[in-house]
Amino acid sequence: MTSQNSRIFEIIHKDKGSNARVGKLITPHGIVETPQFVPVGTQATVKSLTSDDLKEIGVQLFFGNTYHLHLRPGENLIDKFGGIGKFMNWDGPIITDSGGFQVFSLARNKRRELGERDDSPTLVKITDEKVEFRSHLDGSLHVFSPEESIKIQHKLGADLILCFDDCPSYPLTEEKVAKAVERTHRWAKRCLEYHKKNNKKGQALYGIIQGGVYKKLREESAKYISGMDFKGIAIGGVAVGESKEEMKKVLDWTMPYLPEEKPRHLLGVGEIDDFFEIIERGVDTFDCVIPTRLGRTGFAFISPPEGNIKNRFRLDIQKTKWNKSKLPLDRNCDCYVCQNYTRAYIHHLFKARELLAYRLVTYHNVYFCTNLAKKIRESILRNEFKDLKKQWFV
Amino acid sequence: MTSQNSRIFEIIHKDKGSNARVGKLITPHGIVETPQFVPVGTQATVKSLTSDDLKEIGVQLFFGNTYHLHLRPGENLIDKFGGIGKFMNWDGPIITDSGGFQVFSLARNKRRELGERDDSPTLVKITDEKVEFRSHLDGSLHVFSPEESIKIQHKLGADLILCFDDCPSYPLTEEKVAKAVERTHRWAKRCLEYHKKNNKKGQALYGIIQGGVYKKLREESAKYISGMDFKGIAIGGVAVGESKEEMKKVLDWTMPYLPEEKPRHLLGVGEIDDFFEIIERGVDTFDCVIPTRLGRTGFAFISPPEGNIKNRFRLDIQKTKWNKSKLPLDRNCDCYVCQNYTRAYIHHLFKARELLAYRLVTYHNVYFCTNLAKKIRESILRNEFKDLKKQWFV
Repeated sequence: MTSQNSRIFEIIHKDKGSNARVGKLITPHGIVETPQFVPVGTQATVKSLTSDDLKEIGVQLFFGNTYHLHLRPGENLIDKFGGIGKFMNWDGPIITDSGGFQVFSLARNKRRELGERDDSPTLVKITDEKVEFRSHLDGSLHVFSPEESIKIQHKLGADLILCFDDCPSYPLTEEKVAKAVERTHRWAKRCLEYHKKNNKKGQALYGIIQGGVYKKLREESAKYISGMDFKGIAIGGVAVGESKEEMKKVLDWTMPYLPEEKPRHLLGVGEIDDFFEIIERGVDTFDCVIPTRLGRTGFAFISPPEGNIKNRFRLDIQKTKWNKSKLPLDRNCDCYVCQNYTRAYIHHLFKARELLAYRLVTYHNVYFCTNLAKKIRESILRNEFKDLKKQWFV
Repeated sequence: MTSQNSRIFEIIHKDKGSNARVGKLITPHGIVETPQFVPVGTQATVKSLTSDDLKEIGVQLFFGNTYHLHLRPGENLIDKFGGIGKFMNWDGPIITDSGGFQVFSLARNKRRELGERDDSPTLVKITDEKVEFRSHLDGSLHVFSPEESIKIQHKLGADLILCFDDCPSYPLTEEKVAKAVERTHRWAKRCLEYHKKNNKKGQALYGIIQGGVYKKLREESAKYISGMDFKGIAIGGVAVGESKEEMKKVLDWTMPYLPEEKPRHLLGVGEIDDFFEIIERGVDTFDCVIPTRLGRTGFAFISPPEGNIKNRFRLDIQKTKWNKSKLPLDRNCDCYVCQNYTRAYIHHLFKARELLAYRLVTYHNVYFCTNLAKKIRESILRNEFKDLKKQWFV
């Protein structure tokens, strides 16, 4: 197999006491400093924020969802606009997923809603060739396959794109996961082949490692995907119900097999305490909807000492005790929201269900995560990662 | 009666061919150039926008609602923060209403909802002394009176405040309106007396003219209120169901009796075509929820030639025909939204019910109105008001 152009990742510094590393991801739309938190902008918008807000916050990469964008407004429309970035006025790097996770999980939810067995074909029909599914918006029939997913992602035009993978449904028996891993590997090959033939925009394809919580399967998948000619490696299936302990184990099993020179993306993980655990284990980028979702429900991230493992670094702004508070959301934060608005005011906005409420806490949370990743990068460069972690895990 | 300190208004230029005038309103928090559009920020927030957005847009004055702020978060809390401005991080001028309009109209809506007569005392009990009403939020009992309304407005701390008036319910017989006018006048006296004794922040009190669509009553009210020692004059009761023709008549009847040197605020009016009609008749400031409300429902203001009287200068961004459009909301607008986002993208955001949708169109609409008022000011200064009006009324 020939190599996909040149490398897209450079390691700048490796931590002495852990697998953490500082690097840079080189994309057609700019450099992403790693480790980096990646906010999710499912429908070509990071909920309530403009692209200028993202710039001001310091966001360097954001995550779009192929499933949603395919259904609405459609990859052809986005292609005509010159890609997601042009469509939404964001000139920085973007990563898209393959749509696999959504197709499988929405189908699963639908079946459960209908009281059916997880493998009944209500919403999806899965074969080795392709996945047929119905839109959750209007019931229309759609088909994803490895080739189709890459084709759609080529049109969406993100800098980093992901292989189409098989995400098996819970409960995950070893047998079921093994089959999904095998299929994921077969599909990885098809994705790579299709991509190599049709990649005209310099997009970088990441392979995806699956394997559930089974050491043998994770190792097998890590070896297999690492052996292929992908630009980067994504780790999937760790945000679908496993405990944090299991997540750490999965990373511990997987990481030894990954080529050091390729960037590593962890899919769907990013609570505040996770930042330290996953970066420590060598993850470079990670996306998570939690900061934006919590923002819309009134949970603001807070740093130590007020924030800690016990309160999960979250402050519930809707609690009555904040209705007179002149404090900012986070006492140590220098974001626009914390420099300009009090807890009392934001509490009032939530009680009054004002749109500005969701916007302000979303802004703060995305800033908080982006800034925490920055602090961690700086601590690694100074060989003080462990000290920073201790400050947060008191 | 002694005068309330010094004058707060200066006329800079009077139009040759109409009663339009350019002036400046001097408030403790800065100058307001008139004529000026005043966006509404009912609950200490102009829906979805930050105070920095308002600054960027060029908003010079915004309108808070005493009824809503009294119920939540309460004037005592806002007073502790140093007033509405400090509470919401807005350092410019603010105007509040008296709460009268809401108390009467909410009660009316409630009675109709219950199938009761408009004068049945379901939600309010009105006497000459005071109005008792129940909160629409939790049913708790509250009392407004002329003195209480001014006391609350003193605590809210807006630069410009309004008298508590009697807003009679529809259908408005001449007899009913006459009684309401008399009561409004008695209450105006009590408001002014209470205000003079207790005004410690240099707030300026506006009297309110009522009189429905009855020439005699409007003239009577205009004369009476103009004869009192108010800093400014507000015209009420023209946005509660009258036609545009009636609104113009009311202004034509009222204006001749108003002292030229006092600023004039028209309550609750501000569709795009109204801008010209009311400014032409000598209105200096006017507030309206329409630009923000339309913003949240996907109607964006557009200028000529695409915008015209027939389409009410509105574009329905949810229409399918915009789903591929690379045009900005308004082709002639230089606001942040029009410089950065297409109709297709905003159409997509509305279809996907994304929070950013409401924010972007609200921003544009408030900008559009603020900018139109500015263009009108400039046209008056150049004695070209009629020409500008012609361009918009093609």
